[in-house]
Amino acid sequence: MDAQTASSSKGNSESKGRLFLVPAPLDFGCDTQAALEDALPSATLQTAARLTHWVCENAKSTRAYLKRIDALHPLAAPLQQQEITELPREVHKKGDHGDKGSAPFDARPLLAAALAGHDIGLVSEAGMPAVADPGSSVVRAAHDLGITVVPLVGPVSLLLALAASGLNGQNFAFVGYLPQDGQERTQRIKELEATANKTGQTQLFIETPYRNAALWQALVQTLQPQTRLALASGLTLPSARVHSKLVHQWRQHPAPPDNRTPVVFALGR
Amino acid sequence: MDAQTASSSKGNSESKGRLFLVPAPLDFGCDTQAALEDALPSATLQTAARLTHWVCENAKSTRAYLKRIDALHPLAAPLQQQEITELPREVHKKGDHGDKGSAPFDARPLLAAALAGHDIGLVSEAGMPAVADPGSSVVRAAHDLGITVVPLVGPVSLLLALAASGLNGQNFAFVGYLPQDGQERTQRIKELEATANKTGQTQLFIETPYRNAALWQALVQTLQPQTRLALASGLTLPSARVHSKLVHQWRQHPAPPDNRTPVVFALGR
Repeated sequence: MDAQTASSSKGNSESKGRLFLVPAPLDFGCDTQAALEDALPSATLQTAARLTHWVCENAKSTRAYLKRIDALHPLAAPLQQQEITELPREVHKKGDHGDKGSAPFDARPLLAAALAGHDIGLVSEAGMPAVADPGSSVVRAAHDLGITVVPLVGPVSLLLALAASGLNGQNFAFVGYLPQDGQERTQRIKELEATANKTGQTQLFIETPYRNAALWQALVQTLQPQTRLALASGLTLPSARVHSKLVHQWRQHPAPPDNRTPVVFALGR
Repeated sequence: MDAQTASSSKGNSESKGRLFLVPAPLDFGCDTQAALEDALPSATLQTAARLTHWVCENAKSTRAYLKRIDALHPLAAPLQQQEITELPREVHKKGDHGDKGSAPFDARPLLAAALAGHDIGLVSEAGMPAVADPGSSVVRAAHDLGITVVPLVGPVSLLLALAASGLNGQNFAFVGYLPQDGQERTQRIKELEATANKTGQTQLFIETPYRNAALWQALVQTLQPQTRLALASGLTLPSARVHSKLVHQWRQHPAPPDNRTPVVFALGR
């Protein structure tokens, strides 16, 4: 537990609690669950079990996650006594740092418990909080308040997908979601391919699962035959699959993804 | 062990071994070592202990890592009987997919053991193989040969740093190393800042540790006062530190990083 216990910084923050970034398993919304100890180091689970104050995307799934942790490492406080605060709707709607024109969300009030000396856990629905998920406003507020931030090790689907794609991992970008409108999406796919061709930068993106097959089709239709396209789904689960092929190979052997499992898409040279 | 045992794909690859991407702890070259079980899920360590064939960046550090695993989970074969193959110098020099103009490296011969039915582990010096490290040519070769690729969960310094930075984690890029030449470096810093301002995309990069302080100085001198600059060092170690401040705050309270610990740099709005 060294990494967790010894990382509080000296000086001002000594009497303050810390903000732990607690990764969650990648099985949110999936048919099957991963064994927690398969996807997370024991130190991460032990640290999570010790916390009693949470900031999260969704309180219900945070409670479900804490229940799973409790079965391996008894929680320091019973579920009913855990203080669980959801990020406000504003963050879900406008993002952590505001829409264009709107003021960024001030998350400092969410960290009052840390100023009073309690460690706080930040957790999202799946994977690492604040990566392809809300939460960065809370991390930023912690830095602004002099609260030590401790990221814990856990699964990150984007990086597992990138490593398993065979695409360039020394220069890559994650660009979030592509536009829903067909024409705009085609345009964006061409832009991403042009960037990958020009700079060698692998382009990663995600989609709401029920649009997986439609996005795959648009990619296979739009991209050049020699571009490589990789799809990774169900990572860390028994159903894990990674397929990485040139576009002309996808065209020869079409294999659209299903519309239930989260997929990470990657393209490049 | 479900995720590991059940992920072999059906059909052609049934009699083939698989390629496991085995993450390593982040303490390579550091003064202190992390406890393996703090940084890696037990499933990752158990899967690694079961493997007897390796492709790696450096055989010596792979043996040292296997020794540490053996202390927790006895290896399936003694160290002397492990087949450990280093990536050729060509990959270190020109990258996995070749310099501009040179042919990409063909890693298929390195996977002969998998075609003969053995599972192979791919491992780098620290963190996830093929992410900010060599190895993607081996992953690509596996896909080309119909060998199932299984990424295992472990620490990825880039993503821990991003999550802990408070910068935008919904749109980000890792761009590798910046130029060594002072003028070119300044130019590149300005480019990265312009991209971050224009698109909201967080820009991540790394440096050889002995140049950490020089890069920090160039960043603080070159960037605009309202740009946010984050430095994360020693992640997963007792010495872990994450600092995220606006450039004008860095200027008021200068705190250059030391020149021994690996640092991940991130900038954005």
